[in-house]
Parts: sequence; structure tokens; C-alpha cells
Amino acid sequence: MLYLIGLGLSDEKDITVKGLEIVRSAERVYLEAYTSILLTETATLEQFYGRDIIIADREMVENASDEILRDAQKLDIAFLVVGDPFGATTHTDIVLRARALKIPVSTIPNASIMSAIGATGLQLYNFGQTVSMVFFTESWKPESFYHRIRENRTIGLHTLLLLDIKVKEASLENLARGRLVYEPPRYMTVGQCAQQMLEVEEKMTEKGQGGVYTKDSLAVGAARVGGKTEKFVCGTLEQLCNSDAELGKPLHSLILLGNRVHELEGEYLKAFALTPEVWDEIWRRDYEGK
Amino acid sequence: MLYLIGLGLSDEKDITVKGLEIVRSAERVYLEAYTSILLTETATLEQFYGRDIIIADREMVENASDEILRDAQKLDIAFLVVGDPFGATTHTDIVLRARALKIPVSTIPNASIMSAIGATGLQLYNFGQTVSMVFFTESWKPESFYHRIRENRTIGLHTLLLLDIKVKEASLENLARGRLVYEPPRYMTVGQCAQQMLEVEEKMTEKGQGGVYTKDSLAVGAARVGGKTEKFVCGTLEQLCNSDAELGKPLHSLILLGNRVHELEGEYLKAFALTPEVWDEIWRRDYEGK
Repeated sequence: MLYLIGLGLSDEKDITVKGLEIVRSAERVYLEAYTSILLTETATLEQFYGRDIIIADREMVENASDEILRDAQKLDIAFLVVGDPFGATTHTDIVLRARALKIPVSTIPNASIMSAIGATGLQLYNFGQTVSMVFFTESWKPESFYHRIRENRTIGLHTLLLLDIKVKEASLENLARGRLVYEPPRYMTVGQCAQQMLEVEEKMTEKGQGGVYTKDSLAVGAARVGGKTEKFVCGTLEQLCNSDAELGKPLHSLILLGNRVHELEGEYLKAFALTPEVWDEIWRRDYEGK
Repeated sequence: MLYLIGLGLSDEKDITVKGLEIVRSAERVYLEAYTSILLTETATLEQFYGRDIIIADREMVENASDEILRDAQKLDIAFLVVGDPFGATTHTDIVLRARALKIPVSTIPNASIMSAIGATGLQLYNFGQTVSMVFFTESWKPESFYHRIRENRTIGLHTLLLLDIKVKEASLENLARGRLVYEPPRYMTVGQCAQQMLEVEEKMTEKGQGGVYTKDSLAVGAARVGGKTEKFVCGTLEQLCNSDAELGKPLHSLILLGNRVHELEGEYLKAFALTPEVWDEIWRRDYEGK
């Protein structure tokens, strides 16, 4: 049996009791370690689980999945995924591969950022599609996120933006020279995301296609959701550009508010406002009852 | 401290290790028991947790929250919620009440149907807003869900429909006579939901406002997501009207597909098709590449 086991969002104790039992008895234990990270070290997981963990990087999952699935027709293999196994990134590929090899598959769900973000007080019913924000480079600034946010905003819905992480990536220079030297991991912050959002809004406005949001649009910055040091701040996009010190370490996410807001959402969020007066004024002017 | 602890979706072992530690050491343990249910008995939970559980019905949570919060300034109170504490139904009210009483609050997230539904193979990025479907009565057939689905379909997105449950509800006759006699619990099935959807589509079409979906629209029925007997079936809405025997016991959910589908989603779902030929034909005709 192939077990896809969600680890939740924060530390070694966020695994479910059911998941832990399987990890402790499985033949081999893999940790998918490139689409998200826990806020704890792999060694801490190994100690708590009492098992050695094989790190499965993108290369291994995409090109060597047969090794992961080896003998899973008769043995139990645990494949650990941060968050929920079918959360932000789906692992449908490895399941399709398992099906082809007649390996039964079982999923142990866990918390995902896509539902845990409800801890902001925003109602999950009021969220539209989730979007990803990648690190811009000088030559690559994809705008697709902007069109998705437009769709959500048109019908008044909130947008959760999941922020890029770069783990075990080689620089172009090292790649070109065929050197397997990796850059230090990078995690996008709420400030970087808000800046990129405003940069694209400006560009779209110049093209006459702007107006999806402004620097005064209200948004929520979230850090380490589900962890002991979970932190939320809210304010305008312009304010969030400079909120990284307040938010602290990764992982960060950002929510751009839609206009179909509920009074309770505002009341709940107010406690996280960077400057409550600004929050109140804009909330009343542009959101409540609009 | 008030701890809001998610229990996950299925049985007593879906609690996280962290959540279980808090339940075992808390002063009092409440179980919110009216917005969703686990697939197991409360007695099973009590035995596994080694704790007595106080059932918190809607009446208690909405009108007697001060009793739940009593002494939580200095004692640890565990408030258990099926799924994620801020999942389908938010518990922002009790947190606002706790804040007013200067009680610190901590959340232990867990799996929610809103992310676990990814186990269908549908990509969570392709979902629009989630909607609720209530039991229709002769005189009350709310259509708001239909407008939400229209919004999602217009931009090509899938819609997750969460289906009504009625727990500890008195009949109108008993209410009128002041008798506290409760009806047996009722859980909406995928078949009932699909029928109500088609009923509203017909009514809207008569009014000239229809066309959001048809009896040939593709949908997925899901039962006991995250549990050992998890079951998915997919087909047309008309086929799903008669799929309850196939799906089995509650809880059920339904997903109406959007047109912005990914090839992998189709490949993954095909294994659950009630009649693969019908699925293939309509997928190719109305969805893939559209």
C-alpha cells in the first residue's frame, strides 16, 4: 500500500495519530521536500517518528517514482507531504503511477493552508480561486495571477495568494557550467508579494487594463499559520509592503480582500490591523455594505 | 487558554498528536456537534481520548458560551470541532467572546473537506467559492446557491457543494406544542443534492435565467472523504441522482465541474466513472480544451 500522509503545517506533532501509526510501521518513509516545508528540522521529525526519513526532492518524485513505489504491492510505503497530500500541490502523478502498477493507495488528510487560513477570521465561503505568486526576475514577470484576482474581485471574493519557495535550486550560472551547487533556500515574504502585486497593477494600468486593486486595497499578511508563533497583520497593500519585520520568519501567505465582506470578518480582523484608524476608514469607505 | 482543536474528518485517530496532548490535559473538553459529524461514536472518542466529553449543541454554543469559557483565563479548555476549527463553519463568534473576556486562544488546525476534496484528483486551484445546499421543503427552496455556481462556472471553476445535515432538530409540530422531541438526524445525499440542482435549473430556465448547467453536466459525488471507506463516483448530474446506493452512508459532498479542466483531472477521475463511455464522451465534447 502507498500511504500519502499529510503532516500539517507546523511541527512534528501536527501529524495525526493515524498517520503516525503508519509512519512507525511502514517499510520505507519518504518526505516530499520541495513544494512546502515544515517549520522544523527533518532530524526532529526522525527523532519523534523513530524512523529514518528519505528526502524526496523534485528530481526523485518526478523521475524516480518507481524507486519510491518499489514493492508497494506487498509492503507499506509512507510518502509524507507537508500540509494535506492533495493540498496546494496535487500529487496525482504518483497516484496514477501507482494505479498503473496495481498498487493500492490510501490518503491520510491533514490541515492545508487553504483551509487553515480561516484562522484569520475570513469566511472560507467568501474565497475565490487560490493563486500562486512566483519570484519575479528581470526578464520573467508572469501576470496570470492578476487575471485570476480580477475574476475573484469581479464577484466580490477574497483571494489567497500562496508565495513561492525556492529550495535546492541551482543558479543559471552553475547550471550552465554543469555544477550541482545549490543556492540557499528562499521564501517569498508578504512584503515582496505586495510589491510585485503593485508593480503589475501599475503595468496593467499603463496598458489600460488595470484597476483590479490599488495601493489602498485591504489585505492580510499571514505568517507561520497553524504554528505557535502564528502571526497575522492587516492593512493596505502599501502598508503590507513594509510589514515583513512585523510578520517575522517564513512561511508567509497573503490574502487580498474581496468586496463581499461580512461585518464579523471586519470585527475579527481589526485586532490584527497595522494601524486601526486606517483600517477602519478604508473598511467603511470601500468595503462594508459595498 | 481556549484551544480550538480540529478533529479531522473520519474517526478518533484523525486528531493530531498535538491536539490529543491538549485534550488529555485540558480541564474541560467540549465537542461542537451540530455543524458536522465524525463517522464514529462519541463514546469511541471518549475511550480513545481517556476523557469525558461535553456535547455542545447549537443552543449551548450560541447562547451559553460563557459556561464554555468559564475560568479559561487560567485553565485550559478544549473545544473540539469536526474537520478544521475554521473550516466550513467559522467559529469566529466564540473567539470574539473569548477576546472580550481576555482569554488567550490557540487553534490546532486539521483536515477540512475544503482541502481533502483534492483526493478526487481535482486541483484545488481550479475551485471557486464553496456553496451550501440545504434541504428543500415544500415552501422553502432557496436559489442563492445557483447564483454562486453561475459565478464559478462563468470563469470556468469547479464548485464544491457542502450538503445539509440536520441534527437535533425539532419538527415544526413539536416546536409549536413546546415539546423538546427531536427528529432523527438527516444527512443530505448526493442524489438529493443533484435532484435539487436540476429542479432549480428547470425553474430558472422557465424564468429565462437558466443555463448554468444541464442534466448532462459532469459532477463528482464523494462519500466519507478521508475515511477508510471513502468513495468517489462521477458522471452526469442525472446519473448522480441515482448514485446513492453506490456511494453508501453519509457524509456526502458533490462537486460540479467547471470548464477550465486539466487533462490530468480527467485521467484521474475516469477511474470513478459510473459509466466510463458516457464520461469520456461528454468530457471530450464539453470540457477538454473548452
